[in-house]
Amino acid sequence: MKQHYRAGIAGATGYTGAELVRLLQAHPHLQVQWITSESSAGKLLSDVHSVPWAIPLIPLEEGVARAGEVDVVFLCLPHGESITAAQRFIAAGVLVIDLSADFRLADAASYRRWYGKEHSAPELLDDFVYGLCEVNRAQLRGARRIANPGCYPTGVNLGLYPLAKAGWLGDRVIVDSKSSVSGAGRTAKLPYLFVEVNENMSPYSIGYRHRHIAEMELVLNAAAISGPVRFTFSPHLLPLNRGILSTMYVTVPEGVSEQQIRDLYSATYAGEPFIHLLPAGQLATLRHVTHSNRCAISITPANPDEPDGREYIIVATLDNLVKGASGQAIQCFNIATGLPETEGLL
Amino acid sequence: MKQHYRAGIAGATGYTGAELVRLLQAHPHLQVQWITSESSAGKLLSDVHSVPWAIPLIPLEEGVARAGEVDVVFLCLPHGESITAAQRFIAAGVLVIDLSADFRLADAASYRRWYGKEHSAPELLDDFVYGLCEVNRAQLRGARRIANPGCYPTGVNLGLYPLAKAGWLGDRVIVDSKSSVSGAGRTAKLPYLFVEVNENMSPYSIGYRHRHIAEMELVLNAAAISGPVRFTFSPHLLPLNRGILSTMYVTVPEGVSEQQIRDLYSATYAGEPFIHLLPAGQLATLRHVTHSNRCAISITPANPDEPDGREYIIVATLDNLVKGASGQAIQCFNIATGLPETEGLL
Amino acid sequence: MKQHYRAGIAGATGYTGAELVRLLQAHPHLQVQWITSESSAGKLLSDVHSVPWAIPLIPLEEGVARAGEVDVVFLCLPHGESITAAQRFIAAGVLVIDLSADFRLADAASYRRWYGKEHSAPELLDDFVYGLCEVNRAQLRGARRIANPGCYPTGVNLGLYPLAKAGWLGDRVIVDSKSSVSGAGRTAKLPYLFVEVNENMSPYSIGYRHRHIAEMELVLNAAAISGPVRFTFSPHLLPLNRGILSTMYVTVPEGVSEQQIRDLYSATYAGEPFIHLLPAGQLATLRHVTHSNRCAISITPANPDEPDGREYIIVATLDNLVKGASGQAIQCFNIATGLPETEGLL
Amino acid sequence: MKQHYRAGIAGATGYTGAELVRLLQAHPHLQVQWITSESSAGKLLSDVHSVPWAIPLIPLEEGVARAGEVDVVFLCLPHGESITAAQRFIAAGVLVIDLSADFRLADAASYRRWYGKEHSAPELLDDFVYGLCEVNRAQLRGARRIANPGCYPTGVNLGLYPLAKAGWLGDRVIVDSKSSVSGAGRTAKLPYLFVEVNENMSPYSIGYRHRHIAEMELVLNAAAISGPVRFTFSPHLLPLNRGILSTMYVTVPEGVSEQQIRDLYSATYAGEPFIHLLPAGQLATLRHVTHSNRCAISITPANPDEPDGREYIIVATLDNLVKGASGQAIQCFNIATGLPETEGLL
Repeated sequence: MKQHYRAGIAGATGYTGAELVRLLQAHPHLQVQWITSESSAGKLLSDVHSVPWAIPLIPLEEGVARAGEVDVVFLCLPHGESITAAQRFIAAGVLVIDLSADFRLADAASYRRWYGKEHSAPELLDDFVYGLCEVNRAQLRGARRIANPGCYPTGVNLGLYPLAKAGWLGDRVIVDSKSSVSGAGRTAKLPYLFVEVNENMSPYSIGYRHRHIAEMELVLNAAAISGPVRFTFSPHLLPLNRGILSTMYVTVPEGVSEQQIRDLYSATYAGEPFIHLLPAGQLATLRHVTHSNRCAISITPANPDEPDGREYIIVATLDNLVKGASGQAIQCFNIATGLPETEGLL
Repeated sequence: MKQHYRAGIAGATGYTGAELVRLLQAHPHLQVQWITSESSAGKLLSDVHSVPWAIPLIPLEEGVARAGEVDVVFLCLPHGESITAAQRFIAAGVLVIDLSADFRLADAASYRRWYGKEHSAPELLDDFVYGLCEVNRAQLRGARRIANPGCYPTGVNLGLYPLAKAGWLGDRVIVDSKSSVSGAGRTAKLPYLFVEVNENMSPYSIGYRHRHIAEMELVLNAAAISGPVRFTFSPHLLPLNRGILSTMYVTVPEGVSEQQIRDLYSATYAGEPFIHLLPAGQLATLRHVTHSNRCAISITPANPDEPDGREYIIVATLDNLVKGASGQAIQCFNIATGLPETEGLL
Repeated sequence: MKQHYRAGIAGATGYTGAELVRLLQAHPHLQVQWITSESSAGKLLSDVHSVPWAIPLIPLEEGVARAGEVDVVFLCLPHGESITAAQRFIAAGVLVIDLSADFRLADAASYRRWYGKEHSAPELLDDFVYGLCEVNRAQLRGARRIANPGCYPTGVNLGLYPLAKAGWLGDRVIVDSKSSVSGAGRTAKLPYLFVEVNENMSPYSIGYRHRHIAEMELVLNAAAISGPVRFTFSPHLLPLNRGILSTMYVTVPEGVSEQQIRDLYSATYAGEPFIHLLPAGQLATLRHVTHSNRCAISITPANPDEPDGREYIIVATLDNLVKGASGQAIQCFNIATGLPETEGLL
Repeated sequence: MKQHYRAGIAGATGYTGAELVRLLQAHPHLQVQWITSESSAGKLLSDVHSVPWAIPLIPLEEGVARAGEVDVVFLCLPHGESITAAQRFIAAGVLVIDLSADFRLADAASYRRWYGKEHSAPELLDDFVYGLCEVNRAQLRGARRIANPGCYPTGVNLGLYPLAKAGWLGDRVIVDSKSSVSGAGRTAKLPYLFVEVNENMSPYSIGYRHRHIAEMELVLNAAAISGPVRFTFSPHLLPLNRGILSTMYVTVPEGVSEQQIRDLYSATYAGEPFIHLLPAGQLATLRHVTHSNRCAISITPANPDEPDGREYIIVATLDNLVKGASGQAIQCFNIATGLPETEGLL
């Protein structure tokens, strides 16, 4: 375990990249060595973002030339652009943490089904550890290639993993998710204009259409000892800057009591610094998690008049830019390098 | 059919009452005769609201003294306070349109179960027509006592009524609703402060807990020829001023095709001026309905790869202050008095 | 005075154009004959906007071909594109109401100074009446070419016109304006993304830099019998969909009392249907005007301890899409054609 | 200089108190020993706030009994309630940092004029150092009684202090301030309800009426070598959770160039960790400062065409809960105790 690491950030001007730079200001063992941007090379980050912190005076650079100068690279590139970059940093022996979707899925067939094209380096898919820290911590220790999970799946998977592991997830789960706008990225598109989003709510890609379902199946169907689950996943766009709230409707097996479920979650997440289990009677809200790396989870039996009811509502919330992206990437880094897992994170 | 009616508005300073005053500015056959407020009697409405229209110069009055001066009274009083007021206006022969929950339910037992107390005038419950215009239009014609529906149930009931009527609603429906804040009323309570709501999302009373379930069961179980439906209803508070979006997960019987469902909705709502059925591929959003009396409804098969799939997602949206309250009250009035149904409404 | 007019709307898919279509739904004497859009020709307006009203089933058309079919055309085109279109409709004898800035200024030199290029039809500038209804009503009667005022200048000019006319405006005025985002138009630009605007405030073009100063000088310096005024104008972008609030700091001549100022405003705006003068002690807010064609104005002496103080703060608010654009355009039309001025407006 | 300090927080459930608890999670040398709340004693802070961080498991206590257990107390009490509490902690030898307005003013007469009542411990007013760190750093070193500045005055004073000190502030300054809602505190009052604030803007107490003017006069008139300044101060309430932006209109003496002004600001704030001077051509926005302890300041000559113009617009922004309250309180603590000034702050 070294004490100081040098980081490169490829794609530092998107919301994810800028949040990563912001969070790393508070990390005692990571030093940002360079930051890149295709569109804004030559400028300072403060020319592109109104950054609310002391600005690293290193300018944005083009390309990813100086692999040799860093111990770790965070790839905050658009989906599809990480593959080539990752290959290059792997060749240079750099720890690669990819925040795109390029290496999240388990195999080329799954990638083709959900992303609609061939993966250009399918042989690498096996090498990447899926960085859902609370679930894959063991594999993350010492890992050199990490695929950081998507924002929606992080909350859904953390919210349902205990049930899946116990074989109590049933055969169908309905996930109704409400997302802030930053998840759509920092690109000038009409649907994300202020006037289009403010005082509006819009469902999109509802049912079995959104790519993030692949990551839910990846984690939960792998864990689900009772067999695969059919997911219905309905994302909605809401007028907020940060955060995702997922309301999840599950049916547990007959005979499983509320107390057993609460005990299961408590045992699964005992000692987890970033999982916040709400006590009975309280519901997870966005306010519990924004600007932190935490995931809040609440468990509610659907019908208070049916003590043996089988229907439960799990609510999970997270800040999509922190636990749903850059914060979890740092958490992955901390685990991979053997640093205390909470270093630089709140 | 008269051409001019005089209206009294009891409780004109809440959001519902003020919206009613606003809407009536544009109604060619209704003249506001008096407006009342317990807390602001003696003031002008413009002292209490920053009203964006030419202000009726009549001051707010206390009580409901001059029943004899009006043809219709709109009761915009807090739940529980309408009963006494309604009795008084009924005695005076005035058409009563109650926007509270006091006369919505079918019987005293149901009221007791959901409102936690005895109804003080149970004999009146039968007399009131439940004012869901598109469903109960026949009973509304000539009606003298109308209970205006709640905001959540209006969207849910309009969204699911065709399926219930056809016997295709199945035995369980999950309703995930997202509401603006005006539904909580204009009372100074901590959870509705700007800072508490903005950049936050909060589920509340999820499962089988919220009183509005009673109105869903009232309408849909009455219509459902295939037997009663179990509802799971999860409301969420979102940072918006107006509007409710309900995402509803239903399972139709085997053999029912998407086209049959679309045809069912088209036939059920043919000629309805305030129902906006979205074409296939488009989803109902809040923007479709805010500041109008319309309810937008979209129909989506959950899984595009399963042509014979039985799972559907119905999305319904409305402006909770218009179609979910004051607009529908005017629509009820128009129907009851034989005026053109769209008079004064957009 | 005819009773029915046919209107064409060139550029119906921007915020201004769509608001105009929305408002015209309620106009009893204007029928929308065609609507055009360069980018969305062939689609329905409901494919481009989630319109909350019964949708005109006429599709968006390219170009402006059928001038002969309309009595009036509303040009909602980008600045610079109205000139050619206007020439064409003028040639066809159509009443032209231009909502762009192309014909607002008085002469070619002024246009060159503020818009940075030569006007391509300077000979037309004189023909257009500047459509600030409350100030130029006499010229608008029977007018055939009308330049609809800009959003910022409408509020500033209405707020200061009485002082200018009385010679009490002094030699320097500071205008601090706060605008919603819809004023920036419906184009996909990074600074207007939801995440960039929400929870943010940004001044821009402050001092003596913004083009709308030209229209303030045009109206107020023409009216100011005490000589030209130096304007400092500071617009700010705020996270709202609709509305502009301008806080204006003026110094009146010695000896002018608060009562004299109030009397001046009351006299100037006596009988104006869309001017809402707040009583002493109340301040104009956005809520007073949104979704209406009204301009709210409040007058406040800066220092309550100085009864003879010369410093006043005038606050003026309006809905930039209604009184600041499409509503005023309809008001202009009503005046020009001799219809009741409030027809179709709230 | 000790290395560890124990802190008490009196009034931990308001926005300021909760933000202080949040910020102290990241402070390496301050340990929260107890937190109090009159209204919520016995509960956990997480019962009252949806706190997004690991919750100190100490419950909220009533009163302020255990003065002996702490080295420093932060008083986050309502205005007027700090006086008695402060006396008690002073008697116990505790370092007192008061975040209310009770000890900010210089003398009893000023307190009476602005707060409308007699100060109950006027003899203490002299003992308190006004904690505007960048201006009063010398007096803060070793101080035992500190009055934390108000939110509006912090931005205004930091924005204008260099001009005042140089004698270039002129005799009149217009300050147009736009504030988020959290500055109004966490009390259930109608004007701060979500629906009242959202999609609205409201000026209030404009001119020479707001109490915070006293602190501007205190700092700037003391510094202003060219004589006292007349302030016009116009606060506005805007739909945001955090932040204040002040647009300030000043007239500098003839012959002072833009470069001289920029040099003055650069020299005054050289090395200041929390002052962010924007380069020429950039304007301070809220995004520059939210969730940080920074104050961003931009300098703009009003008229770009007048190189020798005397009119300037200074824009200053800060996060009212951090630099405008709890962050500056920690900065004061760091200075008073000789810790590095940035400890625990971003």
